[in-house]
Amino acid sequence: MDKSECTKSSREIYSGKIVKLRIDEVELANGHVTKREVVEHAPAVAVIAVNDEGNIFVVRQFRYAVGKELLEIPAGIMEKGETPEETAKRELREEIGYDARRLEHVASFYSSPGFSDEIIHLFYATELFLSRLDSDEDEIIEGVTLTPDECKRLIEEKEIADAKTLVALMWYLSRPIINR
Amino acid sequence: MDKSECTKSSREIYSGKIVKLRIDEVELANGHVTKREVVEHAPAVAVIAVNDEGNIFVVRQFRYAVGKELLEIPAGIMEKGETPEETAKRELREEIGYDARRLEHVASFYSSPGFSDEIIHLFYATELFLSRLDSDEDEIIEGVTLTPDECKRLIEEKEIADAKTLVALMWYLSRPIINR
Repeated sequence: MDKSECTKSSREIYSGKIVKLRIDEVELANGHVTKREVVEHAPAVAVIAVNDEGNIFVVRQFRYAVGKELLEIPAGIMEKGETPEETAKRELREEIGYDARRLEHVASFYSSPGFSDEIIHLFYATELFLSRLDSDEDEIIEGVTLTPDECKRLIEEKEIADAKTLVALMWYLSRPIINR
Repeated sequence: MDKSECTKSSREIYSGKIVKLRIDEVELANGHVTKREVVEHAPAVAVIAVNDEGNIFVVRQFRYAVGKELLEIPAGIMEKGETPEETAKRELREEIGYDARRLEHVASFYSSPGFSDEIIHLFYATELFLSRLDSDEDEIIEGVTLTPDECKRLIEEKEIADAKTLVALMWYLSRPIINR
């Protein structure tokens, strides 16, 4: 069944620091014509950073768009010229002050494919060693580690309100089930 | 540690069918002033719909914003006046043609809190029964069911590229671990 959608016209509404917005007129495979609002966003990287004790690093950060503090795994936007692995290592240094000897790609997923092209590349980082903390001046971040039991409790009590962090913690907890 | 950010001014750039875009000037707790681009989006609901055989419904849908077909659990935007439970049931009818006797709230999470306020309320639907398929004319959707083993394989082979669907499948697979 053909489900593709063909662009008839495209109009840029806004081009900013983090997002671009455009409106396209598209023709569906069934001939129906509709509009699609698309928010363009650079690819991002998120990291499941686990120390030698098996505990996961999370950061508590105020998220202006949602008006509250969230507990999230370290993450950030890929800068020009960076590979996803380089972004992963830079974000670890910036947000928790560690570097990683091992990085494993876990998954790549779209955060909200209904209106945005943002993709998040998720990595599993182990064999961590202390690095210099290069903070971003636009971010006020507080890092902590969670034991697997604490992760389980936070999920059960619905305290994790960030999609990529839910993916990350569930992946880490279910490694005995999802074989790797 | 105070991490809040205080709005100094706000400017609406666009108000459309699915998204609104605004740019706010904000003051961080450390006195630094910066801009935040915020994409407003209505709350959404996604459903882990499991039949009496223990298999999960997924839909294959072309996502224009990312330019490809994705395998996703049934989901959609809350309409005015709807409760999340009502949206869950409507989306099940529209996308897979089933209704549910039992609905359990699993989690609520922000899809991309760095730039958007979109929240997704995730439900677990069981005791399904056939309903009328009320399709949305702007969506061409194909529904299938997956066994738990197929879900595991799709995650391992990195075939699931939608954040909420990864959360959903991992939650369903890890129910023996994350006790409920």
